[in-house]
Amino acid sequence: MTIRDVARLAEVHPGTVSRALNEQTRALVNEETAERVLRVAEELGYRPNPIARGLKTNRSYTVGVLIPDLTNPLFPPIMRGIEDRLGDAGYTALIVNTDNDAGRERSQMDAMRARQVDGFIAATARLDTELLADVAAGGAPMVLVNRRLEDGSLAAVTVDDRQGIRLAVDHVAGLGHRLIGHVAGPQNLSTGHLRHLGFREAMSDLGLPAPAEQVVFAAAFTEAHGRQACAELLDRAPGVTAVVAANDRLAIGCYDALEARGLACPGDVSVTGFNDMPFVDRLRPPLTSVRVPQREIGTVAADLLLSQLSDGSRDVRQILLEATLMVRGSTAPA
Amino acid sequence: MTIRDVARLAEVHPGTVSRALNEQTRALVNEETAERVLRVAEELGYRPNPIARGLKTNRSYTVGVLIPDLTNPLFPPIMRGIEDRLGDAGYTALIVNTDNDAGRERSQMDAMRARQVDGFIAATARLDTELLADVAAGGAPMVLVNRRLEDGSLAAVTVDDRQGIRLAVDHVAGLGHRLIGHVAGPQNLSTGHLRHLGFREAMSDLGLPAPAEQVVFAAAFTEAHGRQACAELLDRAPGVTAVVAANDRLAIGCYDALEARGLACPGDVSVTGFNDMPFVDRLRPPLTSVRVPQREIGTVAADLLLSQLSDGSRDVRQILLEATLMVRGSTAPA
Repeated sequence: MTIRDVARLAEVHPGTVSRALNEQTRALVNEETAERVLRVAEELGYRPNPIARGLKTNRSYTVGVLIPDLTNPLFPPIMRGIEDRLGDAGYTALIVNTDNDAGRERSQMDAMRARQVDGFIAATARLDTELLADVAAGGAPMVLVNRRLEDGSLAAVTVDDRQGIRLAVDHVAGLGHRLIGHVAGPQNLSTGHLRHLGFREAMSDLGLPAPAEQVVFAAAFTEAHGRQACAELLDRAPGVTAVVAANDRLAIGCYDALEARGLACPGDVSVTGFNDMPFVDRLRPPLTSVRVPQREIGTVAADLLLSQLSDGSRDVRQILLEATLMVRGSTAPA
Repeated sequence: MTIRDVARLAEVHPGTVSRALNEQTRALVNEETAERVLRVAEELGYRPNPIARGLKTNRSYTVGVLIPDLTNPLFPPIMRGIEDRLGDAGYTALIVNTDNDAGRERSQMDAMRARQVDGFIAATARLDTELLADVAAGGAPMVLVNRRLEDGSLAAVTVDDRQGIRLAVDHVAGLGHRLIGHVAGPQNLSTGHLRHLGFREAMSDLGLPAPAEQVVFAAAFTEAHGRQACAELLDRAPGVTAVVAANDRLAIGCYDALEARGLACPGDVSVTGFNDMPFVDRLRPPLTSVRVPQREIGTVAADLLLSQLSDGSRDVRQILLEATLMVRGSTAPA
């Protein structure tokens, strides 16, 4: 018997069930809905996870942080931001790597619950929805980073991916490029999806065409897939003079694909990345890239969690942080 | 027969196995899963080590990990190695950044003690000796990584810095270079100190002179200090045809200094780095660098700690892991 069963029968989202079952958050739910959820829960004999329930009485001053893989250069600055802010407030972070693997996520989450963490910050790309609902039902606050739930039922801190990619498109368009290609990321990841949407919007707003042949989807955010996707783009749309890549690793793959064709960057084709990872300013040419305020993502997420811990509220703010563009040598006039 | 074998056959994460096999944590595992794990363990005749059985009732199954700064690219792979190995054994890592600041170290250490960690892994460059003595007196085992105590009184896992720098010196000497300079790191850090010693030893063993003017000390491991030190080296020993830098960031600074003088790398001067950080293979030219087995440093350190936790011993082995050389485009025949 899980929270999902209650949600299905009560015809609401699992997050709503968890809020309705928690006295501290019940007021956030429509009264009639809350009554229905409570009735269904009683009928089914559903009891929220007692371990997670027990957390409330007994504070550990530890916070569980789930990330996919610390060796991905995106995460250390986020983690650092989280840890700094938690440390200032007397909290310590328990950190686990999930590799975006569902089994590992659940096992790690269980492990952290057993250690009675006071709350969670999750930076995993595909954290299981049922797992999230379980956590919410247990009463431990959770803040998401780098992703958000569609129904906004959990606080979330993300960078504005659409606005970020728009900066890149506007920049190359401002340099006179008209035939602009997009090496998109995997569309099952919100970053890949939102950046693709942002690309189309920005092109459309500029009155520039973006037919299907100008967008190639990479199967993963790696250099090898970027190279392959860019080669395909050059085949399908040989006139492109600028490529907006969905992240830096894909952009590095674009460098490889251009070099393999004997094309110069930025002489023949301009390239932009996204994330502004360490050392992309040291590539040849130095990569123009959209900077994500990673450390700030971490501090803001920690602040949101600490605020929930201090007043017991379930503040589910959805915070969107602004990206900036770092213009470097990989982009030049058309 | 290891916990991994049980995990594979039961199709669960090793962490789940250790929790299922431990009576104190079994309730955290889905009942059906726990039964399957117990069945597989019995079939295989697997006997959990004493950790999984729970030696003491007051064990927290958390380990405190102190690192200077997670955003330094050296640490994420080490941390990942630690976390993976601890996770397999049912432990979780509490992580703190100390910024190599004595006050912060003490406060963080106190915070972790208050959370009743079972042991410590410390990767900080200058952990206060008094603090170490306190920890040792408290009975919690500790393993050092990237540093060792002179008296060898705590277990330590480090890379062999002298052997590593020797690889770089032998490599450029093998390419015919005779006038080889060293951009050394700060001598109050063991890495800077040992690499400098290694440089002198290797040069001496090759019968090559290494007078004072061929060694310049950078005040910090940064690109800016590398640039400055390399410029000084070029002034003092204008005939150098190869520069062995004490780490990658210093080597990148050397690239800058050479470029500022209109000198080509490797055409005029070869350069080597140390650490083989992410993306140094993407620099122009790709950097020849000494690779440190960072992830292995983490797993070996975790193994040492787990072994101490399982048998209560105070095994103070000093483990020296071997470095390897990644030869790339920044080195060429003299």
